Amino acid sequence: MATVESLTAQIAEQSALLNDLRKQQAEAATVEEVKKKLGELKRKLGQMAGGSSKDGGKKKERILLKTPKGTRDYGSGEMHCREHIERIVKDCFTTYGGSCLDTPVFERKEILAGKYGEDAKLIFDLKDQGGEELALRYDHTVPLARYLAMNGAIIQAKLWQVGKVYRRDNPVMSKGRMREFSQADFDIAGVYDTMIPDAEIISLVCTILTRLEVGDFTIKINHRKILDGIFEVCGVPPEKIRPISSAVDKLDKMAWADVKKEMTEEKGLDPAVADKIGEYVKHKGGPPLLNQLRADQALMANASAKLGVEEMDVLFQYLEAYQVVDKISFDMSLARGLDYYTGIIYEAITEASAPPGFKDANANAAPSETAPAAASAPEPKKEKKKKPAAGEEEEEEVDESKVGVGSIAAGGRYDSLVGLFTAAAAGEGKKAAQLPCVGVSIGMDRIFALLWPRWVERGMRSKDTMAYVMAAGDGLLTERVRLVQELREAGIKADFMLKRKPKLPAQFDAGEKDEVPFAIIFGGDEIKDGLVTVKEQRWEIGDGERRKVRSDDKGTKVKRIELIGWIKSTSTYQGWSSGKLA
Amino acid sequence: MATVESLTAQIAEQSALLNDLRKQQAEAATVEEVKKKLGELKRKLGQMAGGSSKDGGKKKERILLKTPKGTRDYGSGEMHCREHIERIVKDCFTTYGGSCLDTPVFERKEILAGKYGEDAKLIFDLKDQGGEELALRYDHTVPLARYLAMNGAIIQAKLWQVGKVYRRDNPVMSKGRMREFSQADFDIAGVYDTMIPDAEIISLVCTILTRLEVGDFTIKINHRKILDGIFEVCGVPPEKIRPISSAVDKLDKMAWADVKKEMTEEKGLDPAVADKIGEYVKHKGGPPLLNQLRADQALMANASAKLGVEEMDVLFQYLEAYQVVDKISFDMSLARGLDYYTGIIYEAITEASAPPGFKDANANAAPSETAPAAASAPEPKKEKKKKPAAGEEEEEEVDESKVGVGSIAAGGRYDSLVGLFTAAAAGEGKKAAQLPCVGVSIGMDRIFALLWPRWVERGMRSKDTMAYVMAAGDGLLTERVRLVQELREAGIKADFMLKRKPKLPAQFDAGEKDEVPFAIIFGGDEIKDGLVTVKEQRWEIGDGERRKVRSDDKGTKVKRIELIGWIKSTSTYQGWSSGKLA
Repeated sequence: MATVESLTAQIAEQSALLNDLRKQQAEAATVEEVKKKLGELKRKLGQMAGGSSKDGGKKKERILLKTPKGTRDYGSGEMHCREHIERIVKDCFTTYGGSCLDTPVFERKEILAGKYGEDAKLIFDLKDQGGEELALRYDHTVPLARYLAMNGAIIQAKLWQVGKVYRRDNPVMSKGRMREFSQADFDIAGVYDTMIPDAEIISLVCTILTRLEVGDFTIKINHRKILDGIFEVCGVPPEKIRPISSAVDKLDKMAWADVKKEMTEEKGLDPAVADKIGEYVKHKGGPPLLNQLRADQALMANASAKLGVEEMDVLFQYLEAYQVVDKISFDMSLARGLDYYTGIIYEAITEASAPPGFKDANANAAPSETAPAAASAPEPKKEKKKKPAAGEEEEEEVDESKVGVGSIAAGGRYDSLVGLFTAAAAGEGKKAAQLPCVGVSIGMDRIFALLWPRWVERGMRSKDTMAYVMAAGDGLLTERVRLVQELREAGIKADFMLKRKPKLPAQFDAGEKDEVPFAIIFGGDEIKDGLVTVKEQRWEIGDGERRKVRSDDKGTKVKRIELIGWIKSTSTYQGWSSGKLA
Repeated sequence: MATVESLTAQIAEQSALLNDLRKQQAEAATVEEVKKKLGELKRKLGQMAGGSSKDGGKKKERILLKTPKGTRDYGSGEMHCREHIERIVKDCFTTYGGSCLDTPVFERKEILAGKYGEDAKLIFDLKDQGGEELALRYDHTVPLARYLAMNGAIIQAKLWQVGKVYRRDNPVMSKGRMREFSQADFDIAGVYDTMIPDAEIISLVCTILTRLEVGDFTIKINHRKILDGIFEVCGVPPEKIRPISSAVDKLDKMAWADVKKEMTEEKGLDPAVADKIGEYVKHKGGPPLLNQLRADQALMANASAKLGVEEMDVLFQYLEAYQVVDKISFDMSLARGLDYYTGIIYEAITEASAPPGFKDANANAAPSETAPAAASAPEPKKEKKKKPAAGEEEEEEVDESKVGVGSIAAGGRYDSLVGLFTAAAAGEGKKAAQLPCVGVSIGMDRIFALLWPRWVERGMRSKDTMAYVMAAGDGLLTERVRLVQELREAGIKADFMLKRKPKLPAQFDAGEKDEVPFAIIFGGDEIKDGLVTVKEQRWEIGDGERRKVRSDDKGTKVKRIELIGWIKSTSTYQGWSSGKLA
């Protein structure tokens, strides 16, 4: 029985056949026959769909050609940039001894439940189609913890994962804040001597941001134990510690007066307690700040704060060994909302990722001791790591000019998460082994948002094709194909025009469109004599645009059997081969 | 107000703090205080949850630690293999002049609707959470067509995309048939001279499968126009063409007698017509088969078949130019269910991907002319490209020993799909431009299913770490860190033990566990004198397992400043650097 779908498909096929026959200039009778059949099919479809026979009865609504809200396609130029970023990040990950892990894009809902606090409403659920209840992953950390809980034999590991994660947030596309975005995570799981893995991760972040050339950056660090100790010492009631923590975390985008207001008016904190907190969290610095804290007897009497300060001290010694202390800012206002952090927490920001005019807004803050002049990036929306959404409405309008890219990497130590899974799986009353972890999440889209404008400015290529093979004269398709295949087999990226008898200027144009450095030309006689002509072409920026460098070079005649070696010995080929970008 | 969640989090933190204090052997009073606090928190939680105070009242159900049905995690060894496969495929894609495209993992439902025929029920929907109706992508082809329809300025392009796609199918995990699986697509869009892009794609598939070393493979090709012509000439009523097509496609896993039975009994075809079809579709071969078809006057009177045969003739000429004809089998039983194919269709299979004993089942088939002795892979479940599910039940039990990996790459020409989108977006009565396309989808998981067992057999490494830095004597952590960082900055993947004062045997064990080739050892005096000792280690297969090659080599003393150059000049380093696997 014919269906609308099968008729539509047949109509499409017959239309394509008709097109081909016309192109091939087939016999008029043949073409007429196909046209007749096409008309019949359309009439049939019209009758079925009840519409006019002329348009085939397609009464369908118009469809909107767009990607879902908060997602986008990336075309060739952008992907060339993103693949470059990814290659560097993966290379750093493996250089630091990490192994790759890959988990599915969705998880059973019960795995994700209860891990993200108030951000749970931002999780993308899958429809109930009669099977398991599923949801798209919100980050890589919870899946990693599940994986480690499932694979109890793993007691020490350095694991990394690069992939997309999903949050039903309010997107700000131009700043790399989307519903589907790419994160690159690196985690060290297991028991080691205290703070060594933590220092290794911070060193890794510095290495990555340096190699990516994001510009000046700062890594803000703090310690949950110190923060919790401070809150206790100041008199914050235990049940208010998380909400107050999230308020403190907003100090990078709100002035102290507003943060205090949130604490006292929205969260019901005693103003005197808020003031005491203020005295602590206004500080940023380096090792001298540690000494200041150590001298605070009230604080040191708190077990949590004492341990935290001791751990920070050890960490700074290791950061000295890694020679990265100049990148670090010990920032007492860094709180990060995630419940699961138990030790150090950190966040990397760049000068470039703060919006204009922000520095004035924070005039209340105490001048920082020996801290790098780092601009904090305002965060009107959620950062990559989960912050409680207290006070943030779902439909808030975002003024993009005031939004910075925000932090480009963040993480911390989370010692109890894997154990939480092991315990939940074991059931009530069972004791579960803990597997301490520390890790970082690199915001790949945020880094792309920073680097892409520079690529556009410099006019980077969108593909790596090295050689364009062209024939002068009568097409010589077989010869072109053979030469291209030889080059490709030798590892030289090569292309040619997919036409039987293309004209030479059109072939040159095609090669130039992709900025292919080597034009390889031959005519019928030349190729019979085993020769080709090679012309090297260069492009540069001039007057704000990329253009080909004029050259009187008529090309070099090269023996075909020597061509591969000839190309591979050029500085252009070797530059590309060693990883330099055009 | 305390919540179960916030209390649980605080309990986790206090437990972690308690652990740390014990490890640090803190003062008993301090430890007691934390224990007391922990007890209070647990009691509070118990009161809230209404359970016993001892276990904190956690009356939650046990959770199941597993990945969703049809999905899985990939750990380090497997990811090392998969990343290797991906790197080779991407390198081939760029070598052939392709540019990368990246589309979102989900699409608006209306984009996917009506494109997959009966397989529509296999699409994963997202839950309606008040926004757009979304579903996970089923392949990369429809998103590509949407992208091209949205970007009308693109009139010619070679685009590739590697990523996961989603189908709610019945999984057979061991054969790489899953609900979440990886596909690598390469497509050429645009108008070119006929069959050149088609030949380029087939050549690309041969290049990829050769470089991946999957073993002997065959590319079965056929042409929709020829098939449709055959059906017409044999007398298949138009509305039965698709269902009969899907029956014919099963000839690679069912004997002719059963296929005929499906055609006549299930699909109501006249047995005489079925017999005529049988005479055609039993043939496989190469160019000689084309001549046979050309001599068939009844067939050549059919416009569709005639054009198809002419196109196949041109294609074979080009495949000669690409020197891949020995890999090709012109297989008249290849039908492939997807409605959107309009020209050539193809499928790559390997000897390795067929299950044992299958060759006997096809004794009815006519002996093939000059065809390579390729075993077709049975397909009890859907192949990677969509076939109509006629006759296949959702809950069919699968005997894994009879299932082959199936086709490892497949595709064809689809000239009308982009135009379908452009038309649907333009609305009724508007004429839409066509953008002809031809492409292929590489089944990355199927290739992994083939290659991984060989990796396990050969004992491949799971990471690329080149050097393991160890200290004899008193820890020398700072010196180890400094040396590791120097190596890493020079591009040498290096690691060390994250302990302050590790013993030497433990460090050697750690390096050996990851099969790190260069052990770099120094003591306090040595490093002060600017010297280190380097020992190279090798592993090999013996008695079916990987083990370290015994060596009396006591190591070479090398000046620290010459170490990087020394390592980089070794054949081990250069082998790795040029892409050889261990």
